[in-house]
Amino acid sequence: MENAGGANGNQWGFKANEELKTASGITVRGVLNSLLENLNKNDTRPLIPLGHGDPSAFPSFRTASVAVDAIVHSVRSARFNCYSSTVGILPARRAIADYLNRDLPYKLSPDDVYLTLGCTQAIEVILTVLARPGANILLPRPGFPYYEARATHSHLEVRHFDLLPAKGWEVDLDAVEALADENTVALVIINPGNPCGNVYTYQHLQKIAETAKKLGIMVIADEVYDHLAFGNTPFVPMGVFGSIVPVLTLGSISKRWIVPGWRLGWLVTSDPNGILQDSGIVDSIKSFLNISSDPATFIQGAVPQILEKTEEEFFSKITDILRETADICYDRLKEIPCITCPKKPEGSMFVMVKLNYSLLEGINSDMEFALKLAKEESVIVLPGITVGLKDWLRITFAVEPSALEDGLGRMKAFYDRHAKKQ
Amino acid sequence: MENAGGANGNQWGFKANEELKTASGITVRGVLNSLLENLNKNDTRPLIPLGHGDPSAFPSFRTASVAVDAIVHSVRSARFNCYSSTVGILPARRAIADYLNRDLPYKLSPDDVYLTLGCTQAIEVILTVLARPGANILLPRPGFPYYEARATHSHLEVRHFDLLPAKGWEVDLDAVEALADENTVALVIINPGNPCGNVYTYQHLQKIAETAKKLGIMVIADEVYDHLAFGNTPFVPMGVFGSIVPVLTLGSISKRWIVPGWRLGWLVTSDPNGILQDSGIVDSIKSFLNISSDPATFIQGAVPQILEKTEEEFFSKITDILRETADICYDRLKEIPCITCPKKPEGSMFVMVKLNYSLLEGINSDMEFALKLAKEESVIVLPGITVGLKDWLRITFAVEPSALEDGLGRMKAFYDRHAKKQ
Repeated sequence: MENAGGANGNQWGFKANEELKTASGITVRGVLNSLLENLNKNDTRPLIPLGHGDPSAFPSFRTASVAVDAIVHSVRSARFNCYSSTVGILPARRAIADYLNRDLPYKLSPDDVYLTLGCTQAIEVILTVLARPGANILLPRPGFPYYEARATHSHLEVRHFDLLPAKGWEVDLDAVEALADENTVALVIINPGNPCGNVYTYQHLQKIAETAKKLGIMVIADEVYDHLAFGNTPFVPMGVFGSIVPVLTLGSISKRWIVPGWRLGWLVTSDPNGILQDSGIVDSIKSFLNISSDPATFIQGAVPQILEKTEEEFFSKITDILRETADICYDRLKEIPCITCPKKPEGSMFVMVKLNYSLLEGINSDMEFALKLAKEESVIVLPGITVGLKDWLRITFAVEPSALEDGLGRMKAFYDRHAKKQ
Repeated sequence: MENAGGANGNQWGFKANEELKTASGITVRGVLNSLLENLNKNDTRPLIPLGHGDPSAFPSFRTASVAVDAIVHSVRSARFNCYSSTVGILPARRAIADYLNRDLPYKLSPDDVYLTLGCTQAIEVILTVLARPGANILLPRPGFPYYEARATHSHLEVRHFDLLPAKGWEVDLDAVEALADENTVALVIINPGNPCGNVYTYQHLQKIAETAKKLGIMVIADEVYDHLAFGNTPFVPMGVFGSIVPVLTLGSISKRWIVPGWRLGWLVTSDPNGILQDSGIVDSIKSFLNISSDPATFIQGAVPQILEKTEEEFFSKITDILRETADICYDRLKEIPCITCPKKPEGSMFVMVKLNYSLLEGINSDMEFALKLAKEESVIVLPGITVGLKDWLRITFAVEPSALEDGLGRMKAFYDRHAKKQ
C-alpha cells in the first residue's frame, strides 16, 4: 500500500518511540553532558571533574599492571576471539565465585554467576526480569538514577524509601515496610553507598535482610564499590545474609580496579536456599541473557588472572588514597559556609552535601549552583536532583589530590563571590 | 505490609517476567545449545560446528595481527580505561565513517556513526527506537531470528516477506508492497545474506530502495558480512542509495576480521537528506544509548588502527578461503540425494539447503534431522525452522577446509544410513 503522505512533503511513515526520552532523561551521563556544554571555553584552567566516579585518568588511580597484562595475554592467546556463551565463559564465572566466596559463610558455584557488561547491564537484566505487569520495586532516595531509568523503560513501578542522613544514611526500614505491598518484588541497596559514601554495618544489613524476609521480597545488593571502604566500618557483602533472604549481588571490576571502561561486571544469585531458582527468576535471567549483549570474550578470558593475581598492595594503595582524598574533601568543604556535610564518607567515591541558599545571592537550586560553578570555575559537581535529592550536591573525591584541592578551592572562591551580602 | 503468604510455604512475593521466555525461545544460540546437549559423549571424533558463523577457532581464520596489536597498544596506553561517551569515542566514530565512505557517493560524518556491542546491539537499538505502539516492521524469511526476538521483546509487530530461492534469494518486492501499511516503519535486508549466502546486485538494491521510498519506510541494511563476497556479484552497500531512501546501516568488525567475541559494531545513519534527524529517530537513538551498555573503551580506542592498518592481503586471504570452502560445501552437498541447494553461495558464511524427507526413513523435520545428525555424527547444522524456513537447513562453510570435508563426509554417511530402502 502506498504511503498516504504521497511523494512530497511528509511522506515518511516512521516515528521514534517517544518513551525513550522519558526513560533516559534522568541519567547521570545526561546531566553531566549538560554541565559540560555549559563550560566557559575561554577558561584556561584545567577542568576539575567532581561529577562522576571515574578517576582512571589520574596517575594515582592507574589500574594494576597485572590486570593490563592479563588482557594482553588473553587477546594474544587467540583463544577468546569467539562468541561467548550467553551466561559468560566458565573460567571467569568460577573465578568470580571464588572471589566472592572469600567473604561468604557458604559457597557460591560458578552457576550462580552471570557475566554482564559492567554493573549497569546487571541492573538492566534484573529490572527487566522483575518487570511483570503491576509489579513494583523499592529504590533508595538518594540513589543511582540508572535504576529509575531502567525501571521506567520496563514499566516497573518505582517506590522510594529514604536514606537517613542523621543516621549515617541508613535505610528507613519503617518506610520500607509502609511502602511494600503484595506486588513488591525487591528492595535495592547500594553498599558502599553511591551517592552517600556510607558503609553499612553488619547489624544494619542483617536488619535489612530480616525486613525483606518479613515482606517476602528479595534484596538486590549493588556492590559495585565493594571493598572500597576506608573508614571504621568494614565492608560486609549482603550475600552473608543469603540464608535469611534471597540476594542478587551486582558487582564489577570497574571501581575496585579503576577500569570502568572495560565493561566487566556480574550478577550473582547469593541464595543458598535456591529460592530464586524455584521462583523462575534464574530461568528468566538466562532467557534475557539469550537476547542480550555479552562482555568481550577476551576480557572474560582475563578475569581469572585479574581476580587471582592482583596483589593486596594495589588495593591498599587505592583505599589509602581514597581515605586521603575523603579527608581533604570533608575538611575543605567545612570552609564553605553554604555547604553542610552530614556524614564523613567511609566508602565508595562520593559524598552528599546540602546547600543553604539563604547564604547565597541569586542561586536557588542545586542545578543552578552546578551550572554556574561549571561556567565560572570549570568545576563539575552533580546536582542532587539527579540522584533524587533536591538542594543537595554529589561530589566525588576520587580524583588526584592536587586536582581535588584545586577544585575545592575554586568552590570556595565561587561561594565568596556569590555569598549574600550582610 | 506483611506478605500474605506468611512465614512458611510460598512466602516470596516475586515472580519473573514470563514474556522473556517467548522472546528468547527462537534464537540461534538457544537452538544450538539444544543441539549441543544432544551430542553423544562417547563419540571420540571432533565436533564439526557447521551451525554458526564463528570460525575464529580455526587456524585459517585467525584474525589479522595488526588488529591484535591495536588492542594491546590501546590497553597498554592507559588512555582508554575510562567510561566511553554514550555514542562512542570520536576517533572510533571518525574511523568508521572514513571506512564506509570509501564505498559511498557522499560523505558520512562521525556524527552519523554510533558504536554498538557488535551488530546485535545495533539491532536492539533500532528495533527499540522504532517500537511505537501499533507499528510494524517487515523482516525477511528466512532471516536472522534475533530480529524477531528483539521485536517481540519490544512489542513491535513483525510481518514477513519471502526471499525467493528461484531468484537467487532476492526480496519478493510484490509481497513487500502487499504487506506494508501506514503503520509500517522499516524493511530489513541482510546483505551479504545470512542465512542464504547470496549477494544482492546493484540493480536489486536500487529496486529495494525505490520500493521503500514509495512506501514511505526506511531500510535497515544489516551488513555485518560486508565485503565477504567471493562470487561474481560485488558487495554494494545499501547506503549508496541513501539519497533515495533513508538507510540505517548496521555493521561490525566481527565477521570481516573474524573477531565476533570483541563485540564492536556500529549503527550508521546513511541518510544525506537528514530525514532520520528530522523525524526524531536520531534523538531517540541517542536517548536509548544513554541507558545502554557501551563497547569496552579500549576496544573503541583500537578501532582507528584496526580499520586503517589492516592490509588487503588479510582480507583477500579470508575471501579466498571462503570461496574454497563454499566450493567444497556446494560440491559435496550435491552428493547427498536428500539435500538440494538452490543457489551456490557468493557471500557471507552460509548456505541454505532443502531437505527431501521422501528419501529418508524416519526423519520428518529439519529439527529431527539436526538432532539425529548431532547425536550420531557430532556434526552441528542449524534447522531451517530457526531462521524461519521449515524443512531447510542452514550450513556454514566457514570452517577449516579439512573439518568441512570431514563434516560433509559424515553427513553423507548419515544419509546413507537413513536413506529409505527401495
